[in-house]
Amino acid sequence: MKNEVFYGKGIRYIKDEDPELYEAFVKLNESVYTGKVLSYKTQKLIAIGIAAAKSDGRALKKQMQSGMEELDITKDEILDVLKVVLLTSGSPAYNKSVNMLYSI
Amino acid sequence: MKNEVFYGKGIRYIKDEDPELYEAFVKLNESVYTGKVLSYKTQKLIAIGIAAAKSDGRALKKQMQSGMEELDITKDEILDVLKVVLLTSGSPAYNKSVNMLYSI
Amino acid sequence: MKNEVFYGKGIRYIKDEDPELYEAFVKLNESVYTGKVLSYKTQKLIAIGIAAAKSDGRALKKQMQSGMEELDITKDEILDVLKVVLLTSGSPAYNKSVNMLYSI
Amino acid sequence: MKNEVFYGKGIRYIKDEDPELYEAFVKLNESVYTGKVLSYKTQKLIAIGIAAAKSDGRALKKQMQSGMEELDITKDEILDVLKVVLLTSGSPAYNKSVNMLYSI
Amino acid sequence: MKNEVFYGKGIRYIKDEDPELYEAFVKLNESVYTGKVLSYKTQKLIAIGIAAAKSDGRALKKQMQSGMEELDITKDEILDVLKVVLLTSGSPAYNKSVNMLYSI
Amino acid sequence: MKNEVFYGKGIRYIKDEDPELYEAFVKLNESVYTGKVLSYKTQKLIAIGIAAAKSDGRALKKQMQSGMEELDITKDEILDVLKVVLLTSGSPAYNKSVNMLYSI
Repeated sequence: MKNEVFYGKGIRYIKDEDPELYEAFVKLNESVYTGKVLSYKTQKLIAIGIAAAKSDGRALKKQMQSGMEELDITKDEILDVLKVVLLTSGSPAYNKSVNMLYSI
Repeated sequence: MKNEVFYGKGIRYIKDEDPELYEAFVKLNESVYTGKVLSYKTQKLIAIGIAAAKSDGRALKKQMQSGMEELDITKDEILDVLKVVLLTSGSPAYNKSVNMLYSI
Repeated sequence: MKNEVFYGKGIRYIKDEDPELYEAFVKLNESVYTGKVLSYKTQKLIAIGIAAAKSDGRALKKQMQSGMEELDITKDEILDVLKVVLLTSGSPAYNKSVNMLYSI
Repeated sequence: MKNEVFYGKGIRYIKDEDPELYEAFVKLNESVYTGKVLSYKTQKLIAIGIAAAKSDGRALKKQMQSGMEELDITKDEILDVLKVVLLTSGSPAYNKSVNMLYSI
Repeated sequence: MKNEVFYGKGIRYIKDEDPELYEAFVKLNESVYTGKVLSYKTQKLIAIGIAAAKSDGRALKKQMQSGMEELDITKDEILDVLKVVLLTSGSPAYNKSVNMLYSI
Repeated sequence: MKNEVFYGKGIRYIKDEDPELYEAFVKLNESVYTGKVLSYKTQKLIAIGIAAAKSDGRALKKQMQSGMEELDITKDEILDVLKVVLLTSGSPAYNKSVNMLYSI
């Protein structure tokens, strides 16, 4: 979520509520997604893998959507990410994630 | 862990104990790490990110080591992976993972 | 959830189903929320932080609601709890929790 | 989920998408649920306990349903599983799981 | 851990520190491990599965040891438990758990 | 960890490696631990509760130690925090955390 447009709703509330925290978050976010050697796209695929491994449906949907819209990540690329989730995190996390991918 | 050499000790015990399960595991492992579109290296970086996000020190060490030995993944590449962990999974997971990277 | 009124639906089913387990649970619950030195309110804020850190939406909602109704915990107090969640557990857990707070 | 009928929707998508991965998964699944000494039913109760301990509602529902339909697992058996979840994983996971059991 | 002998060190400290909490815990523990329909041994196998699925080495060791000493649970029974962990929770949790089993 | 002295080793490596990320982290950290209404001490107790609930021994030790040194948090205060962990996250997390507290 390099682009502010893709911040979650919760974080957008904070913009007014706590501008200092919001600004610090934006800075961290930018610094994280400016990889020294890895591309933003590769980092995004990693973020998708992490959200899927945690079975975090909400975060996974947001990551998949911003990855597809911002970076033209394809369904096949996400399926390759999710295979790693099957092996490292088990079939329920995999099943839920593949199902979410097909429902987008 | 595409290569059998890098399988964990636990899984190697299973080779004798339960050959059918072992064979099924090997097949799944090969199938997972033969991405349709993503390279094995990108999948490995994702596996490193997942292990770090779970604060799973044991798995993380194994993934980092096999990534460095099998695929010449560099310290800087792993640092870019871990930045995504800081943002998505918090500072204790990040701190532990960076520390492990420097201790290898 | 010191007060029986705030027990979850699942636990209330147990009252009839398994009175012995229910009674043991009530005793433990009372003993937990009778802090030696910390106030019940501080313990409740900790319970909110734990539910948010686990991204457990269901438990988080229940903890926030009973905290607000039983103990007059304010939105600003919960926002200060959730900041700790952002740092220790990452932005998806934080984002989900802030969003839930604003939807109550 | 020994029986293919009970595979999750996500995994069924994979049957067409990636037949090799699907086949490897089916083999692993069969090998897992062919216990050397434990019955399939005992293994299923363990799978229910694991899904409940992770507070994974989606997986839990699937496991409970296939356990009841395939293996005539009863409500009382599941309640005995969930008691272990209360002790080892806390009251929110327990509460959610008991509630789900009563809603099936 | 039905038998007090097998309580963890931390919980034993509480006996002096907070007798009321300790007593409530003992009651809950007894009530949990007195299944209505499932045997204590089956519940113990479930507790082993849950500890392994969470990759919680410390709890897993304690559960395996007390299961073997109290209830004559065998290595083969535990291997059948751990197969469910491989499928539902991924290979790092499985690998760590099998390895721990062989090191006891 | 408001005070830089208590940052983890991993994060201190980043100071040289990636000054921009380090600076963003420090800013976020300060902003988080400057509560609008809650005291730093209360936020610290919440951070201890979260680390204990995740069974994250490494983070828990660091949080307990910096809480005791920076803020004179007492053993009894931490025991009241950990009681919430017993109820919400189960006895293995509680047992491990109490044991760690007594070993400091």
